[in-house]
Amino acid sequence: MDKENQKSALSESESNPSSKSVSAESAKKIRSFRKNKFSEKDLLKDLIKGNKTALGRGITLIESNQKTHQKQAEYLIEGALPYAHKSIRIGITGVPGVGKSTFIESFGSYLIQQGKRVAVLAVDPSSSVSHGSILGDKTRMENLVKEKNAFIRPSPSGESLGGVARKTRESIILCEAAGFDVILIETVGVGQSETTVHSMTDFFLLLKLAGAGDELQGIKRGIVEMADAIVINKADGDNQKPAREAKLEFNRALQLYPPKESEWKPEVKLCSALYNEGVSDIWKMISEFRKKVDKNGYFQHNRQEQNKFWLFQTVNDYLKSRFYEDPKIKAALKEQLQLIEDNKTTAFAAARYLLSLA
Amino acid sequence: MDKENQKSALSESESNPSSKSVSAESAKKIRSFRKNKFSEKDLLKDLIKGNKTALGRGITLIESNQKTHQKQAEYLIEGALPYAHKSIRIGITGVPGVGKSTFIESFGSYLIQQGKRVAVLAVDPSSSVSHGSILGDKTRMENLVKEKNAFIRPSPSGESLGGVARKTRESIILCEAAGFDVILIETVGVGQSETTVHSMTDFFLLLKLAGAGDELQGIKRGIVEMADAIVINKADGDNQKPAREAKLEFNRALQLYPPKESEWKPEVKLCSALYNEGVSDIWKMISEFRKKVDKNGYFQHNRQEQNKFWLFQTVNDYLKSRFYEDPKIKAALKEQLQLIEDNKTTAFAAARYLLSLA
Repeated sequence: MDKENQKSALSESESNPSSKSVSAESAKKIRSFRKNKFSEKDLLKDLIKGNKTALGRGITLIESNQKTHQKQAEYLIEGALPYAHKSIRIGITGVPGVGKSTFIESFGSYLIQQGKRVAVLAVDPSSSVSHGSILGDKTRMENLVKEKNAFIRPSPSGESLGGVARKTRESIILCEAAGFDVILIETVGVGQSETTVHSMTDFFLLLKLAGAGDELQGIKRGIVEMADAIVINKADGDNQKPAREAKLEFNRALQLYPPKESEWKPEVKLCSALYNEGVSDIWKMISEFRKKVDKNGYFQHNRQEQNKFWLFQTVNDYLKSRFYEDPKIKAALKEQLQLIEDNKTTAFAAARYLLSLA
Repeated sequence: MDKENQKSALSESESNPSSKSVSAESAKKIRSFRKNKFSEKDLLKDLIKGNKTALGRGITLIESNQKTHQKQAEYLIEGALPYAHKSIRIGITGVPGVGKSTFIESFGSYLIQQGKRVAVLAVDPSSSVSHGSILGDKTRMENLVKEKNAFIRPSPSGESLGGVARKTRESIILCEAAGFDVILIETVGVGQSETTVHSMTDFFLLLKLAGAGDELQGIKRGIVEMADAIVINKADGDNQKPAREAKLEFNRALQLYPPKESEWKPEVKLCSALYNEGVSDIWKMISEFRKKVDKNGYFQHNRQEQNKFWLFQTVNDYLKSRFYEDPKIKAALKEQLQLIEDNKTTAFAAARYLLSLA
């Protein structure tokens, strides 16, 4: 519970200082409970009007693991749903050091100049209250964070990837209902997080640096294949020539992949986020993508498929966690894995045994 | 039941002609039941001695969905397990027309000349009794099929990929216990079958043809990344120049991928299976692979990881099928998917609802 409240305190929109005293915590909890209980209708109304504080509070409810908050979050999401399909969702990934924050700062500011409202979310299962996600450090996007038409929210923390994914997907709906046109979803690329972000976005952008030698080193298998665009960042100064070479090489590599279901041909772009160079070109490309997939029906189709995927994903995750978190299964699993290591059982005999216990 | 018996009749090792008469079928079933019931110990003994008929019968038991047969199969597998870790398991994939059968015929015959015993299995979830898998047509491997030291078995038919995978993995164990040194597992590359074969083999070989233009066209995403070798087949006659060019191109493409956990660098080889050219070179490469991964511990490690993967896979498949096959869930799922299409619910609300029914 303490953890919950600390987490809420992390959010932009709740400024109560977190207290170490138990009674103060309880009092806060009760206040918060009452406040939320009687204001969810108003919250929804404000949110749909585009109020950022209401949006922040709504996301806090989504992030909470308290039953009452979850009910309220469900109410909000259901109410928001009819308003929630006008944006484009853009996934942004790249290894640490590639300049994701600078890119989002530059790209987001450009979009706001174009009259867009921009929400930035993050999927970072490794983040925790103490360590913070890359977006936790708001100073990295000091211009964007000041913009009226920007909303920046760090990754929900202290959660499994599945939990972060659910919360982020629900938050997207609230952002869209609050009138944000462009949702940027950043991931630091830990484990399976790119795949997760890919499965909740319309356009997937891979940030890269020009480097010597093997251009795809350090990128996990499959990431390049998911990309709708590869953007080579820091293409400035002495880096321009290597960046152009890297562009050629990536273009060649992309040709080796089979065509995408969207009929979109992934493009390679150069960019210097630091000098705001290339960002307008990237938006132009994404607008062309949108036009194409709106026309051929892929946009709508893909969103439906993603929703169905998430339905199955949620059910399957739950079925698995219920099984593997059973203490009896936990103990037996440990034994069976050891028997497998010792080559004393087969995978299937071990599975049959475990299932017989459930 | 009839289907089961027909399936058994497909196998090399059972020569009873299939009968259309119900009473004849029943009589056969009873005979077969009695015979198997009292001979599983003998079957195991014969199998371990390397008897191909016993091996064929053992696999028939694995493939059967009858409870008694499954018990017998479990007995056989457990008994076979201590004898079952001396082979190398090689996965072979490639699009139709690439010459998989000719390659296996040529490569398998070469291995037999080298004193090896070679088993050929297939993973082909699309095959059925009526349509037959590529290996169902034995005439395609007319030399190999006559060899004393070759054992060829078509894909278990009329099954989901999960079912085929389980049966094939259990069959591998029997083949190894029967003294087969090299297990070739072919897949026609339908759906997820390459990934499945990759997860049960030590070495994964992708067959390709030299073609104009985009070399990787028609290969599903991710397949090239799984390959330990790309073999360009039909590199003969007028095809030699394009094949050499394709080799260069693939070598370039392979360099773009991150290093494998096995520390093995995938190689590109030319081959003319029709003229038996290049096959010895391929075996040399696989032997070098084996030496490397035996030394660095990856071989054993990978097999253990595969077994653990299959344990979880089997459990998860079962948990899912039990849930989704529940008639109540089936009906509700249909409704919820429609609501998702109409954008009237979220994936998570739908999942929560379905789970509340279970």
